[in-house]
Amino acid sequence: MSHAVADASLNLKTALRDVAVEVDRQFDLLLQVPADPRARLYEAMRHAAIGGGKRLRPLLTFATAQLFGVDRLCTARAATAIECIHVYSLIHDDLPAMDDDDLRRGKPTVHKAFDEATAILAGDCLHALAFELLADSATHADPFVRAELIADLARAAGPAGMAGGQMMDLAAEGSSFDLATVTRLQALKTGALIACSVEAGAILGRVPVEGRTGLRGYARHIGLAFQIADDILDVEGDEAAVGKQLRKDQAAGKETFLTLLGLDRAREQARLLVDQAIDHLRQFGSEADLLRDIARYTLERDR
Amino acid sequence: MSHAVADASLNLKTALRDVAVEVDRQFDLLLQVPADPRARLYEAMRHAAIGGGKRLRPLLTFATAQLFGVDRLCTARAATAIECIHVYSLIHDDLPAMDDDDLRRGKPTVHKAFDEATAILAGDCLHALAFELLADSATHADPFVRAELIADLARAAGPAGMAGGQMMDLAAEGSSFDLATVTRLQALKTGALIACSVEAGAILGRVPVEGRTGLRGYARHIGLAFQIADDILDVEGDEAAVGKQLRKDQAAGKETFLTLLGLDRAREQARLLVDQAIDHLRQFGSEADLLRDIARYTLERDR
Repeated sequence: MSHAVADASLNLKTALRDVAVEVDRQFDLLLQVPADPRARLYEAMRHAAIGGGKRLRPLLTFATAQLFGVDRLCTARAATAIECIHVYSLIHDDLPAMDDDDLRRGKPTVHKAFDEATAILAGDCLHALAFELLADSATHADPFVRAELIADLARAAGPAGMAGGQMMDLAAEGSSFDLATVTRLQALKTGALIACSVEAGAILGRVPVEGRTGLRGYARHIGLAFQIADDILDVEGDEAAVGKQLRKDQAAGKETFLTLLGLDRAREQARLLVDQAIDHLRQFGSEADLLRDIARYTLERDR
Repeated sequence: MSHAVADASLNLKTALRDVAVEVDRQFDLLLQVPADPRARLYEAMRHAAIGGGKRLRPLLTFATAQLFGVDRLCTARAATAIECIHVYSLIHDDLPAMDDDDLRRGKPTVHKAFDEATAILAGDCLHALAFELLADSATHADPFVRAELIADLARAAGPAGMAGGQMMDLAAEGSSFDLATVTRLQALKTGALIACSVEAGAILGRVPVEGRTGLRGYARHIGLAFQIADDILDVEGDEAAVGKQLRKDQAAGKETFLTLLGLDRAREQARLLVDQAIDHLRQFGSEADLLRDIARYTLERDR
């Protein structure tokens, strides 16, 4: 048993590293710096996109796509498109008018390393690049698949997803949201893109909608578990390890899972969500062990 | 002759009005305000998107699509998606860190009427909505058509299009760009989306790439003519009619077509570009008269 656990953590580590290398390679290809006045914009995108982050979302796409034997290059391109959206959202969220953060992934945020205008534009460019990547026939030969990937990502990024959640988050300051509202906020702000990362693997694998119920349940549960772990990290984490400023929610007086549940119940709730996520994978055998390991990892990570 | 000209201007006026009504209707449907903390975000999007602007880009899509008998609802949705990108770019360009404008289309800019965070997010949401609209099967039943529309719009919006042009524009301050660089800047900043508006009509009409040469030439030429007219308006226009602050390029010491060519040569150049644009339509008969009228209109508009 302890041997199996050690193996699992090894597999997860290998997968995390492989995906990080592959996503960096994709970003490097995508973001070649042109010899014209746009160079600074590309440098800013590279600063934000390359060599940082856990790459959790791409990992989820890879782990799901491998269940269905999807071509690795197709998966890499779709996963990078999703990470484009994640990175753009981090750049914009860090802006002075939003969360006003100086540090991200252990480096200065884009508006600190460059300037605000460049940060806004770098985010906008990564946003557009995500859809350019998905619309390209090199990502998938079948336009049905491409159109479905795009529809899913656009929904996850827009006002009914990530951007809507960020808007609720800004409104959270000074409001006293209840548990249902915080849950809804987080389902939009982080949950939608995590769900999309899993769904993209299934879309690439041509799994029909009615065959995705288990994977969707898995994604919904790890999305919430991930956010509760994030709230706990915000209170208990080490800033150097996490690579960004912590304890900001507290300072802003925002309600979180932690303020609403207390530390013990929040931990318990996160563990329960991970168990439920894993339970949603019961239709799969050992080929879904990486997804199971990722579920557990959402709680154990230190950044 | 003068009767024909009067008719043409009447047709153009009717088309401008019809398209404006249709685009407003689409935005109204798309941006129904939800009864949750995202309400403010939707209000901000409505403020920017509804009831303003010339709707030149949607008009170009309609005028091109009607050459090929495209369904009006498909056209309306694609045209609205393109206008989403245009409106988002205006919101972000107006931000304090960018062009710092207080007035747009005769109304306070979004960050003035709301706040900066809401303006950034409203732009981001309209950006995502554009692709959500195009990816939806209600826009076109054929996923090939949807994927091509998306690829074209994402390219036009991204670093090789509008956002890249805006980056060059920010670098223009304090630089002394030559005519070739200003032409390239404007081809990206405004030209790419104008070209995409025409191309979208052809894509919806299932015109193969090799059949679009004339329309592409037309679009490239009116894009530049439009920008020269914009530079002239910036110097000679009436702020109340134009609905935004003018004479900012001068104040920032930026090179424009006007500073590089002088007023007389700039006017002459714009007229030449319109003639060339119209010449590119020679394969079409009277069914392309609206496109011809739009070409002339780029010079005659007062806003």
